[in-house]
Amino acid sequence: MKASLRALRDRFGGIIAGDPDTLITGVGSLETAESGDITFAEKPGYRQQVETSKAAAVIVTHDFPDTPAKNLLRTEQPRQTFVQILSLFHAQRPYTPGVHPSAIVAASACLGESITICEQAVLRDQVRVGRGTIIESGAYIAHAVIIGAECWIGPNVALLHDVRIGDRVKIHPGAVIGGDGFGYLWLNKQHVKVASCGSVQIDDDVEIGCNVCIDRATFGLTRVRRGAKIDNLVQIAHNNDIGEDAIIVSQVGLSGSVKVGRRATLAGQVGVADHVKIGAGATVAAASGVSKDVKPGEVVWGYPARAIQKAWRELASLTRLPQLMRRLKALESRCASLEDRLEKSSK
Amino acid sequence: MKASLRALRDRFGGIIAGDPDTLITGVGSLETAESGDITFAEKPGYRQQVETSKAAAVIVTHDFPDTPAKNLLRTEQPRQTFVQILSLFHAQRPYTPGVHPSAIVAASACLGESITICEQAVLRDQVRVGRGTIIESGAYIAHAVIIGAECWIGPNVALLHDVRIGDRVKIHPGAVIGGDGFGYLWLNKQHVKVASCGSVQIDDDVEIGCNVCIDRATFGLTRVRRGAKIDNLVQIAHNNDIGEDAIIVSQVGLSGSVKVGRRATLAGQVGVADHVKIGAGATVAAASGVSKDVKPGEVVWGYPARAIQKAWRELASLTRLPQLMRRLKALESRCASLEDRLEKSSK
Amino acid sequence: MKASLRALRDRFGGIIAGDPDTLITGVGSLETAESGDITFAEKPGYRQQVETSKAAAVIVTHDFPDTPAKNLLRTEQPRQTFVQILSLFHAQRPYTPGVHPSAIVAASACLGESITICEQAVLRDQVRVGRGTIIESGAYIAHAVIIGAECWIGPNVALLHDVRIGDRVKIHPGAVIGGDGFGYLWLNKQHVKVASCGSVQIDDDVEIGCNVCIDRATFGLTRVRRGAKIDNLVQIAHNNDIGEDAIIVSQVGLSGSVKVGRRATLAGQVGVADHVKIGAGATVAAASGVSKDVKPGEVVWGYPARAIQKAWRELASLTRLPQLMRRLKALESRCASLEDRLEKSSK
Repeated sequence: MKASLRALRDRFGGIIAGDPDTLITGVGSLETAESGDITFAEKPGYRQQVETSKAAAVIVTHDFPDTPAKNLLRTEQPRQTFVQILSLFHAQRPYTPGVHPSAIVAASACLGESITICEQAVLRDQVRVGRGTIIESGAYIAHAVIIGAECWIGPNVALLHDVRIGDRVKIHPGAVIGGDGFGYLWLNKQHVKVASCGSVQIDDDVEIGCNVCIDRATFGLTRVRRGAKIDNLVQIAHNNDIGEDAIIVSQVGLSGSVKVGRRATLAGQVGVADHVKIGAGATVAAASGVSKDVKPGEVVWGYPARAIQKAWRELASLTRLPQLMRRLKALESRCASLEDRLEKSSK
Repeated sequence: MKASLRALRDRFGGIIAGDPDTLITGVGSLETAESGDITFAEKPGYRQQVETSKAAAVIVTHDFPDTPAKNLLRTEQPRQTFVQILSLFHAQRPYTPGVHPSAIVAASACLGESITICEQAVLRDQVRVGRGTIIESGAYIAHAVIIGAECWIGPNVALLHDVRIGDRVKIHPGAVIGGDGFGYLWLNKQHVKVASCGSVQIDDDVEIGCNVCIDRATFGLTRVRRGAKIDNLVQIAHNNDIGEDAIIVSQVGLSGSVKVGRRATLAGQVGVADHVKIGAGATVAAASGVSKDVKPGEVVWGYPARAIQKAWRELASLTRLPQLMRRLKALESRCASLEDRLEKSSK
Repeated sequence: MKASLRALRDRFGGIIAGDPDTLITGVGSLETAESGDITFAEKPGYRQQVETSKAAAVIVTHDFPDTPAKNLLRTEQPRQTFVQILSLFHAQRPYTPGVHPSAIVAASACLGESITICEQAVLRDQVRVGRGTIIESGAYIAHAVIIGAECWIGPNVALLHDVRIGDRVKIHPGAVIGGDGFGYLWLNKQHVKVASCGSVQIDDDVEIGCNVCIDRATFGLTRVRRGAKIDNLVQIAHNNDIGEDAIIVSQVGLSGSVKVGRRATLAGQVGVADHVKIGAGATVAAASGVSKDVKPGEVVWGYPARAIQKAWRELASLTRLPQLMRRLKALESRCASLEDRLEKSSK
């Protein structure tokens, strides 16, 4: 991939200060960029780093000072422009469509056009795979799974029976979709398993990280809605409903029947109790333990999670506790001394 | 699967109010049930939902009001009855016993009757597998592993050398049993690994979730005892001893040599320090960090974990801290004013 | 493996009290040792256990009392001596070098001498593997991955494209190295993925646990440096830099661009916010949430993590809060009574 600075400007907008014919051959950060690379700087304060960077061009804000020695592309949002250019330069090795001879595909599987099935992937009875989808090496697709178009199912992924996957879904290595829900009833002196009669539906444009687990529903569907993004090692339990464009960061654990609203963000290692609802656009800060519903747009933090300002205030008081103990002790002796004096004067 | 309401009553007990010949063809929740389904309601308070449900029959308590429009099955414990019926209706696709031609089974492996070995499973030297067990696609069974009867070893599971599995054990996709314990000694300016000379034993009727890790012992056995149930993404370390019928919820992490008593429950994301003993029947609430032994039957919570009433009381005081600060300040000024007045009056 | 006590003394040092010709045929703990085994006791206080142990010989300190009935090997550091002897007795089944016929190795892959490639492993284009390395069953090695000498790549491991692995690296089952970084930009009402243009480098003598996830860098490298040891189910995010000989215990989660210093220790379930630096030799206690840099050598604990003494002091005050509330209330009534009396006396 190569492009002139002018070509990038024409495609993504902005104003060039410098040579529009500069050839861009790669991307990098201010520190790692080499000659030929384009990079970005979000604030005028990075002027010195911009001047000393080896980059061929730098995307900056409109109020960035002129740096005659460096080609600039001024845009409203340098980071946004850069992320778009990044995708352009991100070379991904193309797959050659076809079914590898070592893959084992059931006769009743229904494969769309231009799909790629890699080494030793297994597709069982009645699996359906949409156009252009890639099933990587060692992936296991159980019976009656439906996968949409243009998906990427990573190596060693397991999609258990009847799971449904939309279009343009990426599932990273080692993820397991459709495991049994975790539920038991104590009956006649043993745990009787609550059968998982439901399934899982992953909607379009979802991304699921490495070694994630998504359990099937007791009835109906565990659901991950359009555009939601799930990081590595996350646990999505039976009957969860993850809203559109929600962000679930690494190692989050959701109990059964949790509902996460549209565009909500759950930071790393958050835990959520069963049946809790996280409102649309809400944010749960890292490692919080959520035991009650969170309102739309609310920001919560802590263990247990509460409004973040409240949590911080309590934390601050905690820090002042040793000092508070001293003040209380001082007051007690002042009070005792007052009582003494009053006692004497009243005699 | 189809059964009349009478047949279900004959099998699981209870009293029918309505038509015993009602044909039940499926199961569902009050909300998701469709015509032909049976569902349940735990309390009389759900009367309205029962009446509007599409279910053909509803399992209710003996004190549930009559609802002429709906067939009822009255039992002591509607949920229990329902879970039993659920298992009946939970259609699982049967496996056809046999060894798939793509599986690689060592000549010295000893296979019981009616076992199923799926695509590309690997069974090394001296593996023994009991009657009726299913080894799913891509599972890896290292040398000298012993697996009992009627087990299900999921796709892409790894059972490392010498691990022993009892009867009726279910191990879900991606779980790894028998990895090395994590222990090092700093010696001659490098970490020297403490060799894992022991193994892992999983007893009868245990269930192990997706992507769980269970490490082998330094000596002797890491042990998961009869009937224990382990959820997804749990870490069981070297020399752990998990008691009979214990419940370990998702993302729990146990350090080395932890002992979990019979029927203890560890809720999601709990962490336990090494050598700690959790007593029989104890409960550790979600995300607690347990650094000391927990007595049998005790309920603990928090970070660090303490008796749950104590933890809640401390948490409540924390909430009152800002108010407490104000009261202290007010007292200080009242005290100062008293001192002033006394000073003046004594002149 | 068999050795006389004399031979062990000659190799690892120490002074024998007892019969140097005692034949040692195995290892065990004080409790589990059987006849023929060697074990150790760290303190003179274990005298009774030493005497009742079935072990043929016990490694003890120089100040351990004489126990005529038991053969002793006295050394400076019994545990250290024992761990070294442990490695000697730890029998690992040898691999027979060669490429299993079911493995799929690209013609352009470059294999060193004496390597072992097990059943159904996949090695793509331009993979390079060093001398003596073992690639276990079902491992997936994507294009242009470079693996050094004497490594062990466990079953069902996935090494994604361009990842580089040093010498003597052990990667346990189910680990995924080189997944995409988790980063999105909200643009035109959708999450636009920040492309992961970088890769991962694992240096010599690193050990990586089961089902660990290590994401590739946005640019440059996510790096795990020489001798670092990573336990099961850990999340290492894009652009992390893990220092030499660092210890990362199970279920730790690191956000993007975290730097962990040389010989730092992160205990189980710790979470670290993005761009945080953990100094060399620092220790983060279990389940802490680190949101600020930690100084070299510092010991921190808590949520959020702070100096461990400070955290404990605050925790102790928290315990005294209910009592503090009572004292405050008593003071208020004493103050009120004083005010009353003063009021009356001034009339």
